[in-house]
Amino acid sequence: AAHGARKMEDYGRFLAFLASSLLVGFVSVILSLVWVFHYREGLSWDGSSAEFNWHPVLIITGFVFIQGIAIIVYRLPWTWKCSKLLMKFIHAGLNTIAMILAIVSMVAVFDFHNAMNIPNMYSLHSWIGLTAVIFYSLQLFLGFAVFLLPFAPVRLRVALMPIHVYSGLTIFATVIATSLMGITEKLIFALQNPAYTASPPEAIFVNCLGLLLVIFGSLILWMASRPHWKRPPAENAKILRPIGATPEGTEAESTMTNSSNADKSDLRSNTEVARKQNIKFDEAGQRSTM
Amino acid sequence: AAHGARKMEDYGRFLAFLASSLLVGFVSVILSLVWVFHYREGLSWDGSSAEFNWHPVLIITGFVFIQGIAIIVYRLPWTWKCSKLLMKFIHAGLNTIAMILAIVSMVAVFDFHNAMNIPNMYSLHSWIGLTAVIFYSLQLFLGFAVFLLPFAPVRLRVALMPIHVYSGLTIFATVIATSLMGITEKLIFALQNPAYTASPPEAIFVNCLGLLLVIFGSLILWMASRPHWKRPPAENAKILRPIGATPEGTEAESTMTNSSNADKSDLRSNTEVARKQNIKFDEAGQRSTM
Repeated sequence: AAHGARKMEDYGRFLAFLASSLLVGFVSVILSLVWVFHYREGLSWDGSSAEFNWHPVLIITGFVFIQGIAIIVYRLPWTWKCSKLLMKFIHAGLNTIAMILAIVSMVAVFDFHNAMNIPNMYSLHSWIGLTAVIFYSLQLFLGFAVFLLPFAPVRLRVALMPIHVYSGLTIFATVIATSLMGITEKLIFALQNPAYTASPPEAIFVNCLGLLLVIFGSLILWMASRPHWKRPPAENAKILRPIGATPEGTEAESTMTNSSNADKSDLRSNTEVARKQNIKFDEAGQRSTM
Repeated sequence: AAHGARKMEDYGRFLAFLASSLLVGFVSVILSLVWVFHYREGLSWDGSSAEFNWHPVLIITGFVFIQGIAIIVYRLPWTWKCSKLLMKFIHAGLNTIAMILAIVSMVAVFDFHNAMNIPNMYSLHSWIGLTAVIFYSLQLFLGFAVFLLPFAPVRLRVALMPIHVYSGLTIFATVIATSLMGITEKLIFALQNPAYTASPPEAIFVNCLGLLLVIFGSLILWMASRPHWKRPPAENAKILRPIGATPEGTEAESTMTNSSNADKSDLRSNTEVARKQNIKFDEAGQRSTM
C-alpha cells in the first residue's frame, strides 16, 4: 500500500511537470505571435520583415515546442499500453514536423535577407542554427534507419541508443540557445528609438519570451532524464530472461527503477533482482542510459 | 581477458574525451585573450572598454572552463583512490573559484556601463546571466550544506542528489547559452565599419570561439552523463550488502555498469547480480541518476 501511494504521488508529480511544460510551451508560441502581430509587421511571404517574422514563430512552434513534446512522448503513462512501434512513429512524426517547420523558417530568413541585400550566414546564431538543423536531420534519418526500420540488429540498437538520447537532448538544448541568440540579434537590430538599451515594452516582452524558452527547455530536460519516468520495458524482455527469473511484475518497473526513491527495507530477493537486472539490459536496447 | 580488454578500450575512450575537452577548453581561453588583446583594447580596470574585456575572459575561464572541469572531476579514474571527501573539496573549490570569477566579471560590466552611462540589466543576456549566477551560488551553498558538511541525513542526500546533478548540468548549459548571447551582443555593438554583417576577420574569429564553447559543453555533458564513467561506490557499500553478496570486485564496477556494452553471453549469477544491485542502490545515495 505504501508502495502504491508512492507510485500515485510520483504519477501526480509527472502530470504536474507535463502540464507545466505544455503551458509554458503553449504560452511561448502565443507570445511569439503577439510579438510579430502586435509589436512587428505581422506575417506574409513577400520578402519584407513580415516574411522574416515567420522565422521566430516557426522556430518556437516547431523546433522548440514540438521537438520538446517529441522528446518526452514515450514517457506519457497512458501511451504505455500502445505498441512501441506506434510510439516510434509518433516520435519520428513529431520530429519530422519540427524539422520541416525549422527548414521553412530558415527559407523565410534567406528570402528576406536576399530581398533586403543583407548577407546570409555571417552571425554565430546562423552558424550554430544551421549546424543544429543539419545534426537534427541526421539524427532523424539515423533514428529512422536504426530504430524504426526492422533491419538493424539488436546489438547496433543497443550501442546507438545512448548516443541517440544524448544527441537528441544536446541538439534540443542547442536549439534553445540558438533561439536566445536570435532574440538578442533581432531586438538589437529592430529596436531603434527607443533602442534595446532603453528597455521599451517590446524589449521586456521578448526578454520574457526568452526566459520562458529556458524554462520550457529545463522542464523537458528534467522529464527526459528521470529514469523512473521511462516507459516500462517491452514484452521481448522474455527472450532475454535468464534462469530463475519470473515473468510477472513488469508493469511495476516504472516506479521500481527509481533508484533514488529506493527503500533500504525493500531489498529484493536474488530472483527478483535477477529479473530486474534482465529488464535493465532490455532497457538498454530500447532506451536511454541518461 | 575479453572483459579486461573492453575495460581498457573504455578507459582509452574516456581519456580521449578528457584530452579533447581540456584542449577545446584551453584553446577557448586562449582565443578569448587573443580576442581582447589582438582585436580589442586589452585589459585594464578603468571604466573603459578594456575593463569590459575582463567579462568574456573571466566568464570563459571561470564560468565555462573551470565549471566544466569541476563537473567531471569525480570521473577522473586516478582520483578514485583518493577519499570521497577530498574530491568533494576539490569539486566545491573549483566551483567556488568559478563563482568568484563570474561575479568579478559581472562587476567589470556594471562598472563599465556606469562609467559609460549605458543602462544595466536591459538585455536577455543580462537577465539569464544574472539568474544563472544566482542559481549557481544557491547550488554551491546547498551542495556545501547537504553533501560536504556532515550534518545532513543520508535520506536527504539521496533525495537531493538527482536534483543537484540535474541543476548543475542545466546551469552549465545555460551559462554556455548565455555566453553565446554575450558574443552576439558584443560583436553587433563593437563591430562598426566593417559591421558584423560584413564578416570582418574578428567576426569569423569570435564566431569560431562560440563554436568551441558549444563543443566544450557537449563534451562535458557526454562525459558527465555516461553511467559507466562514474566513480565506483565507496566502502560504505558494505553496510548495505545483502545476504549472499561478495565483497570483492567493486573496482570492476566502472565498466560493468555500462549497460549499453553489456554482453548477452555474460549474464551474471544471481549472487553477483544482487551485489551489483546493492551497489546501484549505494550509488543513488552518493551520485547521479543521469
